[in-house]
Amino acid sequence: MEILCLDLEGVLVPEMWPKVARDSGVEELMLTPADQPDFGRLMDRRLEAMTRHQLKLSSIQESVAELDPLPGAVEFMSWASSNFQVVILSDTFYEIAMPLVRKIGNPFLLCHTLEVHDDQVRRFHLRQPNPKTAAVRNLQRMNKRILAVGDSYNDLAMLHAADKAYFLNAPAKITKQYELFPNLTSFEELTKELSYELENA
Amino acid sequence: MEILCLDLEGVLVPEMWPKVARDSGVEELMLTPADQPDFGRLMDRRLEAMTRHQLKLSSIQESVAELDPLPGAVEFMSWASSNFQVVILSDTFYEIAMPLVRKIGNPFLLCHTLEVHDDQVRRFHLRQPNPKTAAVRNLQRMNKRILAVGDSYNDLAMLHAADKAYFLNAPAKITKQYELFPNLTSFEELTKELSYELENA
Repeated sequence: MEILCLDLEGVLVPEMWPKVARDSGVEELMLTPADQPDFGRLMDRRLEAMTRHQLKLSSIQESVAELDPLPGAVEFMSWASSNFQVVILSDTFYEIAMPLVRKIGNPFLLCHTLEVHDDQVRRFHLRQPNPKTAAVRNLQRMNKRILAVGDSYNDLAMLHAADKAYFLNAPAKITKQYELFPNLTSFEELTKELSYELENA
Repeated sequence: MEILCLDLEGVLVPEMWPKVARDSGVEELMLTPADQPDFGRLMDRRLEAMTRHQLKLSSIQESVAELDPLPGAVEFMSWASSNFQVVILSDTFYEIAMPLVRKIGNPFLLCHTLEVHDDQVRRFHLRQPNPKTAAVRNLQRMNKRILAVGDSYNDLAMLHAADKAYFLNAPAKITKQYELFPNLTSFEELTKELSYELENA
């Protein structure tokens, strides 16, 4: 029984911040890691914008709760949970993501936390430096083989640390740069690759 | 969002081996850690008995699949999974436990594995030495606070390694020896204690 580490946004569910940006009208929340690759600085800018616009956590939660998992994600998670121990490694926040995570079966989730007072986000706490890589390494210390699936630059270190790794729905500019990882474009392809690993483990 | 590490047998579900022993008539499978505290040696004896009686894995699985979670366990797991990231740390084996683990919501499970050929258990592979303690320590390395719940001697090191720990339905001879840990006797009491931690974290 191996551990399957999955990125969340872009892999199993849609990106959450653009939805919050659209619903709230706070344009700065449209910023992505492509605009600011340093996640701490990106969150600093998001937090500053949320504070300036007095955006409430409950409003953010309502926006995110309206999102649905990507097509096929629920079925994939059901299959994956029967064949692997699944861990979601994400740069999201528990306070925002939980309603959406429940829609994919409430798997074990490691992400960051928000500090909230009076329905306003005051601070954010990143779980640890290089959170996805650190998680993979510590899971490996439990003597488990780790398979990992991601779609973006913040997944690269995790994919490199894992024993076997795949891109799912990753942009061409990333997959061309890192041809080491199979470039998959559907849950059907991913299920096929993972089934191969199950049979040949 | 803290991590809650739960023992499986005796805490959430009944002991599995006595059920297998009763159904199969293989008396040696009644042996418990009280008879042989070294788990590797205990499994050696169980394996020898299974081989001698040509006990099939599928028969063991059928016996275990007939078991139900302890009263209240399903409701407790539902509550716990909404408030913590739950990890089951057990000395059971994936090949035997999965049908029963699905009945409590298929939480993230770390346990051992069996090597099976032609429906016969040939070998067992313990995940790592001191598996529960090692799991707690490596989860702590992911910068998470760990709460733990157990009921027997093989949980003691895990309870000591955790940031906060409880006995649930533990025999008096253990709880008297280790008064450091609250001695809880129902899911209601456990939920109350964990709720206190949630409010004061």
